[in-house]
Amino acid sequence: MSKLDVPYKIYLEESEIPSSWYNVRADMKNKPAPLINPATMKPMTFEEMQPVFCDELIRQELDDTTAYIPIPERILSAYKMYRPSPLTHAVFLEELLGTPAHIFYKFEGNNTSGSHKLNSAMAQAYYAKMQGLKGVTTETGAGQWGTALAMACSFFGLECKVYMVKVSYEQKPFRREVMRTYGASVTPSPSMETNIGRKINAEHPNTTGSLGCAISEAVEAAVSTEGYRYVLGSVLNQVLLHQSVIGLETKKACEKYGIKPDIIIGCAGGGSNLGGLISPFMGEKLRGEADYQFIAVEPASCPSFTRGKFAYDFCDTGKVCPMAKMYTLGHDFIPSANHAGGLRYHGMSSILSQLYHDGMMEARAVEQTSVFEAAEMFARVEGILPAPESSHAIRVAIDEALKCKETGEEKTIILGLTGTGYFDMVAYEKYNNGTMSDYIPTDEDLAKGFATIPNVNL
Amino acid sequence: MSKLDVPYKIYLEESEIPSSWYNVRADMKNKPAPLINPATMKPMTFEEMQPVFCDELIRQELDDTTAYIPIPERILSAYKMYRPSPLTHAVFLEELLGTPAHIFYKFEGNNTSGSHKLNSAMAQAYYAKMQGLKGVTTETGAGQWGTALAMACSFFGLECKVYMVKVSYEQKPFRREVMRTYGASVTPSPSMETNIGRKINAEHPNTTGSLGCAISEAVEAAVSTEGYRYVLGSVLNQVLLHQSVIGLETKKACEKYGIKPDIIIGCAGGGSNLGGLISPFMGEKLRGEADYQFIAVEPASCPSFTRGKFAYDFCDTGKVCPMAKMYTLGHDFIPSANHAGGLRYHGMSSILSQLYHDGMMEARAVEQTSVFEAAEMFARVEGILPAPESSHAIRVAIDEALKCKETGEEKTIILGLTGTGYFDMVAYEKYNNGTMSDYIPTDEDLAKGFATIPNVNL
Repeated sequence: MSKLDVPYKIYLEESEIPSSWYNVRADMKNKPAPLINPATMKPMTFEEMQPVFCDELIRQELDDTTAYIPIPERILSAYKMYRPSPLTHAVFLEELLGTPAHIFYKFEGNNTSGSHKLNSAMAQAYYAKMQGLKGVTTETGAGQWGTALAMACSFFGLECKVYMVKVSYEQKPFRREVMRTYGASVTPSPSMETNIGRKINAEHPNTTGSLGCAISEAVEAAVSTEGYRYVLGSVLNQVLLHQSVIGLETKKACEKYGIKPDIIIGCAGGGSNLGGLISPFMGEKLRGEADYQFIAVEPASCPSFTRGKFAYDFCDTGKVCPMAKMYTLGHDFIPSANHAGGLRYHGMSSILSQLYHDGMMEARAVEQTSVFEAAEMFARVEGILPAPESSHAIRVAIDEALKCKETGEEKTIILGLTGTGYFDMVAYEKYNNGTMSDYIPTDEDLAKGFATIPNVNL
Repeated sequence: MSKLDVPYKIYLEESEIPSSWYNVRADMKNKPAPLINPATMKPMTFEEMQPVFCDELIRQELDDTTAYIPIPERILSAYKMYRPSPLTHAVFLEELLGTPAHIFYKFEGNNTSGSHKLNSAMAQAYYAKMQGLKGVTTETGAGQWGTALAMACSFFGLECKVYMVKVSYEQKPFRREVMRTYGASVTPSPSMETNIGRKINAEHPNTTGSLGCAISEAVEAAVSTEGYRYVLGSVLNQVLLHQSVIGLETKKACEKYGIKPDIIIGCAGGGSNLGGLISPFMGEKLRGEADYQFIAVEPASCPSFTRGKFAYDFCDTGKVCPMAKMYTLGHDFIPSANHAGGLRYHGMSSILSQLYHDGMMEARAVEQTSVFEAAEMFARVEGILPAPESSHAIRVAIDEALKCKETGEEKTIILGLTGTGYFDMVAYEKYNNGTMSDYIPTDEDLAKGFATIPNVNL
């Protein structure tokens, strides 16, 4: 047992759920670059975004000066369904590793969507409802975001139309059924319901779909259906804002029990979890009030931070979305197969990209067999079977704790445990059978992706 | 929103996890009848049970006088991995139903096994380890008990061999992989590893297995392997004892927030969850200190309480286990197909059977489409996707809350939400597609099962 005198699981009181989100952009001297409209090559305006996004969400997207944005009462009620989430002291993992380090994990998987995605889904569905909309559309790959949105829409009484990448629709029927149970309609993409879907089906009759195509269909369906808008589960500034509830709760729990983190670790796909977890701590660092080591962990097969370029690029392969300045592998980059579906994105949040560019955080790329090794070690002593995505953060937390064992340092490490792996057993089966392999793109592979990054001079 | 002034989710402090289990038998005037040895027709002795069960667990099985049995320190540590579990005020369900009733649910699904089964698995694995054993065997059908035991064995460093009913092994590969991830070996039953398995395979080459056969194989493997014992996840007195942690926490949460339950509802398969949830409240009722209405809910397709006989019967179809006095449909009764795998048992805990026989509790049988209707209603407003088993309790809680709406009574209802339905999406898919049907055994079907109940005169 670890000697640090804190409860194993730290639950805050319901009254300690933060009443405002924290907008880290307000404390950034170098603001993240704005989204630009590829037609005008100028920053996207409120009016240009209106046909696609909900009004209040556009305001949040564009607001880079207000530090605290109050959480509406009804969203707070919804958060109480599954929050506060526990900050757990990984005493059994520490015991197993024999490390003097203290490891804590903020666990966001204790809800049926199985991940932190619900924090933003609840907010986005609420604002859509308040605007008097009838429904929202979105895309989903692995299915966590689609599930979270289906739950949020059912809670607020809103229609929900999910375009699910065809290969996932067929291979993950259980995820699909969870969404249907919450009343969402789920369409395999590419479908025959949209112009872009019909076009792609005509050109590639055997395609199993892609996230880029599903985004294009979801956007087309939103703009062409009365009373609908499109919503997105990661990358955008508004999503990181909503996810700050993770970091704010973590910070409050630390203050309550006198825990001072040295290192904060999160996995990074589009950046929603990592951004949410670190933002209040990053705010302190930006204001010069405290120092922390932040580590973003990404799969070696899709290394946006560690091997990507910091440039304007399209957010989607179909180029229907605006361009964002971010670390990118090129919008046509196709990540080699890996089982952390939520981390297979060519780009990265503009906020995190700017912070990384400014040297405020580090990044590491890890290979998937070492990730599953860490996942299994964690599951066996801490009980929770982690999502492959979250296990990237576990891998680096274990590595850091083992370094402490060598040096004797008593560092305090906090990691974001974004979710559970209950719908990822195909991946665990491969690991258990010893048939999992690692893929790392060659420089040549990357060069092909980089070639698709547009040449933008602003 | 409900006006009752309690937090939405009531988490106790870690220090409030009970330090002793409560043994309801101590307060029963009419003790549950003892297990009998079919060879001698006399009560099973400690020595007769020793080749099969762990010593300390036999002591707990036989002890019907000690009211409180201390929980060893290391089991308490293990409980802290996932306990205390929340008692949640179902404010959104109340709002949807428009009922004056107050509904609370004790949620036991917040752990990777997905159910309350872990409470007894941790205890049983601990005592096996303390006895210096090498490993344990068990059987599993739907897979929740097998998963819980695999987790507990990995936590305490014990080998775990699970015989999984062949049809489940093939149809539920994800459950199997969770067990393997926790280091358990999982064998489809009937196997070629045991005498009974080889015999059944020879006689029925195409059999897909049964729980009765898996039990027989697990017992044979335990008694024929050096350093092994057999463990069981329900029905037994020891299991109800361990599960009393559910009821003790519930009672403490009620006392802390001034909640006085009128009705306590739980689903009943072998009785482990229901028995655990109600026992401390039942103790009060037995001692004449308070009165509560207890409702056991079972599937109409396997109605042990509502249509069964109170008699000595074999606990398993293979007749390798002792006989127990219980409400039974006959050990050869084959329940018609339904999706609540955990409730498809021909018998019932002897403790609960005695209490039911003495008029201390009620029972209701419900049909599965109405159960899934309740499940979906619950999921959409309360967030959690419930297990089909747990949804039986939800069904009756909703029925009782709707009665209150008619009468205007402000009753307080507590239900046991035993687990999550993440591995039951095939059942939800059927419900979503409108292809689920209800099966109720005819009196003739039941008569065939009753004919297999042995004629015991003690």
